[in-house]
Amino acid sequence: MVKVKVGVIGGSGYTGLELLRLLLSHPAVEIEAVTSRRHKRKRVDEVNPHLKPFADIEYEDVSVKEIARRCDVVFTAVPHGVAMDYVPELLESGVKVIDLSADYRLSCEEYERIYKKRHKDEQFREGLRHAVYGLTELHAEEIKNAELVANPGCYPTGAILAVAPLVRARKVKCVVFDAKSGISGGGVEPSQRSHFPNLAENIIPYEVTTHRHTAEIRKELKVSVHFTPHVIPAIRGILTTAHVFLRESMSEGEIYEIYRQFYEGKKFIRILNEVPSLQNVRGTNFCDIWFEVERGASVGKAADMVEEVREVEKSSRVVVISAIDNLVKGGAGQAIQNMNVMFNLREETGLWFPALAP
Amino acid sequence: MVKVKVGVIGGSGYTGLELLRLLLSHPAVEIEAVTSRRHKRKRVDEVNPHLKPFADIEYEDVSVKEIARRCDVVFTAVPHGVAMDYVPELLESGVKVIDLSADYRLSCEEYERIYKKRHKDEQFREGLRHAVYGLTELHAEEIKNAELVANPGCYPTGAILAVAPLVRARKVKCVVFDAKSGISGGGVEPSQRSHFPNLAENIIPYEVTTHRHTAEIRKELKVSVHFTPHVIPAIRGILTTAHVFLRESMSEGEIYEIYRQFYEGKKFIRILNEVPSLQNVRGTNFCDIWFEVERGASVGKAADMVEEVREVEKSSRVVVISAIDNLVKGGAGQAIQNMNVMFNLREETGLWFPALAP
Amino acid sequence: MVKVKVGVIGGSGYTGLELLRLLLSHPAVEIEAVTSRRHKRKRVDEVNPHLKPFADIEYEDVSVKEIARRCDVVFTAVPHGVAMDYVPELLESGVKVIDLSADYRLSCEEYERIYKKRHKDEQFREGLRHAVYGLTELHAEEIKNAELVANPGCYPTGAILAVAPLVRARKVKCVVFDAKSGISGGGVEPSQRSHFPNLAENIIPYEVTTHRHTAEIRKELKVSVHFTPHVIPAIRGILTTAHVFLRESMSEGEIYEIYRQFYEGKKFIRILNEVPSLQNVRGTNFCDIWFEVERGASVGKAADMVEEVREVEKSSRVVVISAIDNLVKGGAGQAIQNMNVMFNLREETGLWFPALAP
Amino acid sequence: MVKVKVGVIGGSGYTGLELLRLLLSHPAVEIEAVTSRRHKRKRVDEVNPHLKPFADIEYEDVSVKEIARRCDVVFTAVPHGVAMDYVPELLESGVKVIDLSADYRLSCEEYERIYKKRHKDEQFREGLRHAVYGLTELHAEEIKNAELVANPGCYPTGAILAVAPLVRARKVKCVVFDAKSGISGGGVEPSQRSHFPNLAENIIPYEVTTHRHTAEIRKELKVSVHFTPHVIPAIRGILTTAHVFLRESMSEGEIYEIYRQFYEGKKFIRILNEVPSLQNVRGTNFCDIWFEVERGASVGKAADMVEEVREVEKSSRVVVISAIDNLVKGGAGQAIQNMNVMFNLREETGLWFPALAP
Repeated sequence: MVKVKVGVIGGSGYTGLELLRLLLSHPAVEIEAVTSRRHKRKRVDEVNPHLKPFADIEYEDVSVKEIARRCDVVFTAVPHGVAMDYVPELLESGVKVIDLSADYRLSCEEYERIYKKRHKDEQFREGLRHAVYGLTELHAEEIKNAELVANPGCYPTGAILAVAPLVRARKVKCVVFDAKSGISGGGVEPSQRSHFPNLAENIIPYEVTTHRHTAEIRKELKVSVHFTPHVIPAIRGILTTAHVFLRESMSEGEIYEIYRQFYEGKKFIRILNEVPSLQNVRGTNFCDIWFEVERGASVGKAADMVEEVREVEKSSRVVVISAIDNLVKGGAGQAIQNMNVMFNLREETGLWFPALAP
Repeated sequence: MVKVKVGVIGGSGYTGLELLRLLLSHPAVEIEAVTSRRHKRKRVDEVNPHLKPFADIEYEDVSVKEIARRCDVVFTAVPHGVAMDYVPELLESGVKVIDLSADYRLSCEEYERIYKKRHKDEQFREGLRHAVYGLTELHAEEIKNAELVANPGCYPTGAILAVAPLVRARKVKCVVFDAKSGISGGGVEPSQRSHFPNLAENIIPYEVTTHRHTAEIRKELKVSVHFTPHVIPAIRGILTTAHVFLRESMSEGEIYEIYRQFYEGKKFIRILNEVPSLQNVRGTNFCDIWFEVERGASVGKAADMVEEVREVEKSSRVVVISAIDNLVKGGAGQAIQNMNVMFNLREETGLWFPALAP
Repeated sequence: MVKVKVGVIGGSGYTGLELLRLLLSHPAVEIEAVTSRRHKRKRVDEVNPHLKPFADIEYEDVSVKEIARRCDVVFTAVPHGVAMDYVPELLESGVKVIDLSADYRLSCEEYERIYKKRHKDEQFREGLRHAVYGLTELHAEEIKNAELVANPGCYPTGAILAVAPLVRARKVKCVVFDAKSGISGGGVEPSQRSHFPNLAENIIPYEVTTHRHTAEIRKELKVSVHFTPHVIPAIRGILTTAHVFLRESMSEGEIYEIYRQFYEGKKFIRILNEVPSLQNVRGTNFCDIWFEVERGASVGKAADMVEEVREVEKSSRVVVISAIDNLVKGGAGQAIQNMNVMFNLREETGLWFPALAP
Repeated sequence: MVKVKVGVIGGSGYTGLELLRLLLSHPAVEIEAVTSRRHKRKRVDEVNPHLKPFADIEYEDVSVKEIARRCDVVFTAVPHGVAMDYVPELLESGVKVIDLSADYRLSCEEYERIYKKRHKDEQFREGLRHAVYGLTELHAEEIKNAELVANPGCYPTGAILAVAPLVRARKVKCVVFDAKSGISGGGVEPSQRSHFPNLAENIIPYEVTTHRHTAEIRKELKVSVHFTPHVIPAIRGILTTAHVFLRESMSEGEIYEIYRQFYEGKKFIRILNEVPSLQNVRGTNFCDIWFEVERGASVGKAADMVEEVREVEKSSRVVVISAIDNLVKGGAGQAIQNMNVMFNLREETGLWFPALAP
């Protein structure tokens, strides 16, 4: 079998390492280059003993041209603002790119407003470069022929997948996403937030109305979206509680049918009949989804509630909950899923294994 | 100083033990009786070494009459459905009662609908017995003269205190409460949910639209309320994220002023200028509150968002976050705060100490 | 390829489920039967959503005869005292057995003394049945031809592998094993020890001088052994700190050479040059080993220390630390490693993948 | 009552903050100065919201002379190597000093060897300055009249208290201390070790044979001591497992009697009849102790064990386990206990309250 030749730019952060963990077991891939300025010339598995002896590769600090020469596709797993330094030259050398940063997820205009920095890719600025948003379940057709895939943020993956079926069916008025993430989303560098005494026995809300991923979610869903993230004392996983206000009352059966049809044949979406649990997706590319319709009177209603309020009360709310592994479906796994689609491999190649539970 | 003579019915659960921990250091209290069928005749601090050598008291299994004879006030820290077995006789013997169960928090009618059991207190059924809802900051005047205080649930304490100022000012259309609790709220008995491998590295949503505390919150707030609880991998604390939809746009200054006035002189409410943290309330009776107004455009808006949605978008949302210790302000501490009010002690007596952080 | 037909008796505990997780991805295996009385006729992945949709198998409650008819090898993943009900009949039907309980790890005499129950396998009682102790790295030759393998306990695996090279080289006088295990070793049933508020923010020593695994360690090592286990607030993993007293002073180089030679070609032993970490073995069959020689004076010596004590001080101590995943190398993974050896497969088949870190 | 006037040099680290938390509730103390260069002129409880509104004090950056002018006693809660910059001038100004750093715990000679830096206090170098080792239970008499108390390290506190009775009774040949500490001992600054993804689901051994606290333990105990520390995924607490080799066999009764007599009247030592738990000492100054004698044959003995080994086996081993809160008894609490002794207050003043459990 001819293998896809891949490169990873930025192979020492959590996302880069997760790419390596998964690519090393991928049957149709050859890893041709892994870069890290800090660790150059060290063996990947010397620096990262959990990959020993699998990652018998040396970190390099080579030119984009050289990476492009060796590879069919390159994953850029560097911070936003940095990916745009590599992407243009990679694309111009004829390599496909899957960018795990935020640099190509929004329009240039919106990117600059939200991330508060000038976008350095002139083609992108002038609208001559187009990136496909790599939420595989929603955009597989475009991904198939894409040269550049903007791999979604971890929070948007959990949020969008949770409500896309209802939104696309035009049933949704407004969604309040209350997301809870493991701290690995914050990266390998220690910080006050990742300092054990601050996070253990706690849960930390942050960027409560201003998180940048909100723009990404809004762009995809095009409905009224509120998004509040929290960090939980856990390493991996995002549980997203989507409080959905529907345009009209719906039954659980109707909703189920919408989800079933929407996700038919999507191998990584599991619609559950019990509450999702992070342990069931740990280490995997699955997104587990479950929902419950709120029945107005089921838990009490104040007798003297004002009329206007009753009105609101009547319109149904449904709570949809999704669970993903932030580093896999919310990052490296979905990137590989996208690569599989781009190279005509079966979508689940290299990603088809059960979760590590407990 | 004449001390208040207190009894605790149900002294071996987390709430009962937390009552004892706090009462043992309370300068104006004498503990006259602690009951536990299971541990009767054992020393409290033999069964619970963390109270050694302070709780040099024996668990008893005595009659209500005898407890009433010894005490001025009795805390009933037993499960709902059980408290109503003790309360009538206690009250008839002239003792004041602070009930930490759910038995007297709702109207009899609503109680029976929500808790799905017949209320056994005939006086209460016929509307002849009245309990004051013991959310101290909101009902201090009535508590002062109450014979029976229904101590609030842990979730309602965090939720109601978070938004009461805005609700009472008639600014609120609807609130989505997304609450995160430590597992100690589930009690001393091991369960699948409290099983370490199930909770660690996880966050567990449960009774997503049907939690019984919702009725309590609605009864107090009388606005449209949605409530979804989660258990986090932590022992103590409830962080409540209140997604508030306002009737009209408000500035942070206006909101701050409403909170400041509403809680003026309330010693256990701390309005912060940074995100609350469970560690800052650990072991204490404080409720920390903070809020942030969502500015519509701040995090991106889809250009092609439908008109109707824009409408919703315009009306401001404010996210209010509160943090309490579920066993103290959400249970035993607030019960003692109520006792202080009932016996004309300073509200903070025995409860005035800083948190255990980190 | 002709696949090995396997059965799992007891497929609903942590060990049984881990067997399934690993066997489902094993390229040379066909799962023919999984038993569970409690869940019979339910789909394995309905009961255990982390295996969805991989474990499209039904739990059965079938006769030993029927299992034997279908399988080449059977894993018994039931509590000690229960395995011996199945093993004799299985063996007599000509199936190979890998027993994950303690029933065949010790001599009958010692088993009865330690586990305080009569052994029901008459052949075993009379010395006519022989089990090979399945510590693969030490007994591969015998395992190759074994009909019955007694898979080691989780603690003995970590302890024995840590010091076997030194012991076999007759360098060791005495070892104090201080072991720290994740709670999953305690099984799926909630208990006071696994109750989150009891284990979080804690570490629980238990059976401090009386743990049954001590006998297993002593039997293999035949030196003076002391063993004290602790449960840490973690799900998976055992870190064993072996405080080794040597018969004579040795240099780190000499010790390293002994380990290198002893474990040469053993694919699952990784001798590290930094302290082992549970995250580097999470989900894998690896045993990571590292050691440090104590240099007498390096951290201070009391000037007035009595002479006799100085004597002891002189003889070197080395601290050896090993890390395993208790459910994999300490259970299901080693059982599969043994199966591979028994069926002439490459030892690492189905077990050759990197750890889930972070 | 005339209050003791205290100052805290270094009031923004975990130890300094814990001193403040405790001193704020201490009935016989007036806090006169708290220093912090970084936070000078900020209110202590603005920087540390868990102390709000109790610590209505400003951080200052004042001269030693000024602090000495205001105070009767000063706590130096700064890193080792820094305390010695303050102590001489403080003492010369006639203030008593309780130093929580390592600067005065060892002899000058040993300090320089172990901490690898020159001691700057010339009086101390020349043997003209004497510090009393502040392990209160062992040295109360000398502490009473001390001008300078060297407050013990956290690990030595747990280790020494665990075995001192047996050591002083000359029963001990050798002790292997295997200690497990919460991460707060590492301080407020984030590090790789305190990075949540590295510590959660893990236990980290470090400085396995070279920890500097070993010298402190040896100096006090004067027997053969081996010490290996680990960090556990917990915030507070040290559990010390002391594997004690006795000079001769002893019964549990004999040992109990030695402990009982040795610690008679010591209010903060609790000798338990069950395994200690960190939750029972959380936030307190208690040291809980428990032990179990190993009975040779109880857990199996290899029949073919060599003779020499049997010899060792015969001599009894006892496992003693102690539990403390590293920031209280292992730091700030013991410092205050020492202050109480120095100022003729009852030893437990300000420290007499039960633990925060669960």
